[in-house]
Amino acid sequence: MRVLGIDCGSECTGYGIIDSDGRSHKIVAAGSIRTCAKDPMAERLRGIARGLRDVIGQHSPEVAAVEEVFHAANTKSALKLAQVRGVALLVVAEATMRCAEYSALMVKQSVVGHGRADKRQVQYMVRSLLGPEAPAGQPDACDALAVAICHATRKNLKLSMGVAS
Amino acid sequence: MRVLGIDCGSECTGYGIIDSDGRSHKIVAAGSIRTCAKDPMAERLRGIARGLRDVIGQHSPEVAAVEEVFHAANTKSALKLAQVRGVALLVVAEATMRCAEYSALMVKQSVVGHGRADKRQVQYMVRSLLGPEAPAGQPDACDALAVAICHATRKNLKLSMGVAS
Repeated sequence: MRVLGIDCGSECTGYGIIDSDGRSHKIVAAGSIRTCAKDPMAERLRGIARGLRDVIGQHSPEVAAVEEVFHAANTKSALKLAQVRGVALLVVAEATMRCAEYSALMVKQSVVGHGRADKRQVQYMVRSLLGPEAPAGQPDACDALAVAICHATRKNLKLSMGVAS
Repeated sequence: MRVLGIDCGSECTGYGIIDSDGRSHKIVAAGSIRTCAKDPMAERLRGIARGLRDVIGQHSPEVAAVEEVFHAANTKSALKLAQVRGVALLVVAEATMRCAEYSALMVKQSVVGHGRADKRQVQYMVRSLLGPEAPAGQPDACDALAVAICHATRKNLKLSMGVAS
């Protein structure tokens, strides 16, 4: 299964693609789409859409996974992030891919084993699971890979438990 | 000037296009794009994008206007709405149109004359300004027309005051 994980952000949207059988994962591509903070939001969203379409076109993932919208303490940031998320969901739907959604808690549980892990622990585990090809110093790409790993492992768990979807 | 106003909503996104010289306005088109609440969000966003692209393709507005994201009491609704808004901004940017943003207060001031007007007053004034062609019983289309009128009148005001943009 080839999974695209997306970590939405108005300044930097991370993406990570893995090939996975649900237990072992191989990194296909990872990186981030940066936008210019000075540009109007519409222009930034256009850049993010273009970047994601390029990544999908180049690597043909079968399914996408994103984090659920979180109800952040900082509402202004959460609303900006939700706009990016809307664009990511649109791009995925227009590529006729299914899009799974996971809470931050589920992502942490899947990657680290418990939901209270901090960002650094998640990044450490992503690199442990994916080996030296995992990007260093790119937290957004790493977070995107964590979402992709979460989808692959949960999908596998459901299959092994006989749950259809 | 042909202005497209958009009133974002995950269930119903209103649109309204007017031709305006800044003082008198003529309605070109108005309506709403409905989505099915049972569908996944990605699918609903796809329907909204398709609907807005159709409207732009059919009527070739020169500029678009949307309301700013509001910090609603209900964060969950605001986050849903922000996802739709992200898609609307993207569609407008990809049609190489500029997109102006106005607060709800500015829209009410432009249409009713004061910022404390309720929804019914705004709808009443939109119909007064646009005549019998304004849609009755379509609050989302009416709200979208209000945003379009706001842009046209404010743009005209700026020009008459010698402000370049």
